Amino acid sequence: MATTIFSEMSALAVQYDAINLGQGFPDTPGPREVVDAAVAAMHRGQNQYPPAVGVPALREAICHHQQRFYGIDLDPASQVVVCAGASEALSSALVALVGAGDEVIALEPFYDLYQAASVLVGAALVPVRISAPDFRLDPELLRAAVTERTKVILLNSPHNPTGAVLSRDELQAVADVAIEHDLIVLTDEVYEHLLFDDEVHVPISTLPGMAERTVTVSSAGKTFSVTGWKIGWATGPAELIEKVLGVKQWFSFASGTPLQYAVAVGLELPDDRFATMGRELQAKRDLLTDGLRELGMEVYHSKATYFVTADIAPLGETDSLEFCRSLPARVGVAAVPNQVFHASPEGVETQVRFACCKRDEVLADALLRLRKL
Amino acid sequence: MATTIFSEMSALAVQYDAINLGQGFPDTPGPREVVDAAVAAMHRGQNQYPPAVGVPALREAICHHQQRFYGIDLDPASQVVVCAGASEALSSALVALVGAGDEVIALEPFYDLYQAASVLVGAALVPVRISAPDFRLDPELLRAAVTERTKVILLNSPHNPTGAVLSRDELQAVADVAIEHDLIVLTDEVYEHLLFDDEVHVPISTLPGMAERTVTVSSAGKTFSVTGWKIGWATGPAELIEKVLGVKQWFSFASGTPLQYAVAVGLELPDDRFATMGRELQAKRDLLTDGLRELGMEVYHSKATYFVTADIAPLGETDSLEFCRSLPARVGVAAVPNQVFHASPEGVETQVRFACCKRDEVLADALLRLRKL
Ligand SMILES: CSCCC(=O)C(=O)O
Ligand SMILES: CSCCC(=O)C(=O)O
Repeated sequence: MATTIFSEMSALAVQYDAINLGQGFPDTPGPREVVDAAVAAMHRGQNQYPPAVGVPALREAICHHQQRFYGIDLDPASQVVVCAGASEALSSALVALVGAGDEVIALEPFYDLYQAASVLVGAALVPVRISAPDFRLDPELLRAAVTERTKVILLNSPHNPTGAVLSRDELQAVADVAIEHDLIVLTDEVYEHLLFDDEVHVPISTLPGMAERTVTVSSAGKTFSVTGWKIGWATGPAELIEKVLGVKQWFSFASGTPLQYAVAVGLELPDDRFATMGRELQAKRDLLTDGLRELGMEVYHSKATYFVTADIAPLGETDSLEFCRSLPARVGVAAVPNQVFHASPEGVETQVRFACCKRDEVLADALLRLRKL
Repeated sequence: MATTIFSEMSALAVQYDAINLGQGFPDTPGPREVVDAAVAAMHRGQNQYPPAVGVPALREAICHHQQRFYGIDLDPASQVVVCAGASEALSSALVALVGAGDEVIALEPFYDLYQAASVLVGAALVPVRISAPDFRLDPELLRAAVTERTKVILLNSPHNPTGAVLSRDELQAVADVAIEHDLIVLTDEVYEHLLFDDEVHVPISTLPGMAERTVTVSSAGKTFSVTGWKIGWATGPAELIEKVLGVKQWFSFASGTPLQYAVAVGLELPDDRFATMGRELQAKRDLLTDGLRELGMEVYHSKATYFVTADIAPLGETDSLEFCRSLPARVGVAAVPNQVFHASPEGVETQVRFACCKRDEVLADALLRLRKL
């Protein structure tokens, strides 16, 4: 299996001392309470095996969070499993729910792990493209992608790399297809708290008939600016969550005991602390969007996430993969080519993803460096 | 897939407020420096994604540790991969190195994950039993287990659950078979620093001709009494480690950034700090062994690990699984039946594993409770 694009580009960033706008991680600390809680947990001696399913305090906090923000009722004893990040939640879910010969429908561009984990179990990933400039989901394309082998629709909203946010109508179209064909929806919602403007995140599990067929994945990494802690989770109907746990217990078994306790504290922070997250990032999205436009790129409107997608064709560039591979050496900036998130690069050859989750002066410096292009 | 025996028994321990001598984890803190280093890393802001392969400081410390204790030379850039515990290192290695229809030879009793991960990839686990009272490896049994489909010999020394330590002669016999049949050896050495009496741990990778065909797995959990951190690693030839990383990047991707920095500090602690670990645990092994013998059990000599295996037949018991399932409710103690680590329980129906890695007064209390039997 090939190296992830994030490893490749971050290694180049280190090699050339470049500003890393490739892999998505912030360069400022998250809520102080969360790190303090991890320290306290370690000092309390909470360093031994957690239950494979996760420490009770975190499972309860996850359920409480889902209730508070979305009105979702979950049983912490049977409807939550804590994983080594959303990554492990997603790979465990795919291994648990999909078999050889099955098909997994995913929004394209798709996060690279979706395809790798599908291939691992002998399943095929069937892309349904969402296209620039709006990255809206065409329900007809989705319907056309369903076959007798389709097992899972793998959603991602807010969407990495495009910053799209699926509307209630788009989600309803997905729900209609899932219910009609009796499909499981696996949904990656790790950017649930990083929305801009007046965007609203609607978990698809809240739509009628969906709770019983949806496995929702989220994580603490983006919400609390601790991407390296890798504390994630899957929630959903008990019989599906049991299957996810049944696989995950043979991967990491469990992980990060003190970090689990800390994330439990984070999830119970007051509402306003969550509200400011998107607002702060929005200013950075604007800074980066405006700056890249000034450089002559076409920049698509990002509604959420750490990311902004730009088209480099106006600069005379023809291949984003080549562009991103040479960028750290050329100007000291790293970015990620969107084409690696596609089954075929056709039509997206010149799209590049830049991360906006950096300090203002770092973004300004990156933009200055990009002027050299 | 079934629940791990550890989850089952630890849940019963919680339910009945029993002393948990089942799942192996200590109840006293490890080296202060290690927790302090984790706190310092978090305060330094080392909370973002590590490289998928692990932070450089930890990879260097792992190599230095292998050099210091065993004279093994490894390149930190290509011969080490950090994982979410030994669990993820083992499952990634099995997925990476073994395919459908292959056979994996493992010492029996075997840690449950070995079989589950083998089954996950469609391979068969072929047991080679080591038997009470000495749990020595019979080279003829090993030779007889090899077929054309054998791909990997999965070793575990020091051995869980028996506390056996493979001697240089036994390891040489394994090496002879591996070289003759061109097999990969995957070796789980997580108890490498928890040896009793004058036992010596010999990594099989140090035997002639073995470095190029051995993937060695270890972890910080047992050595530094942080079983819940789940920082483990695989080391070996670059081309095999690259394959392990190729799978692992799609499981957790990476995990525990601040904990990785802390384990790096732990691995650089002075020699005497490692030397005391086995000595302190040995006194507990004696306490538990003597106490269980006084209760009438036959207790086998444990040379290493957190564990002691006892035979409950002298108490009139006939089935260790039933015994362990009822023990928390009956007397308030949890233990693990060795039969679940066997392909067939025949001959080991009455063996039970007890953990000795607890405070003396806890072991004394557990022995007092067991008197009620
Ligand atoms: C797990 S590394 C990838 C980080 C990330 O989520 C992204 O940059 O898209
Ligand atoms: C990962 S839970 C099992 C703990 C352990 O290593 C054991 O008790 O054998």
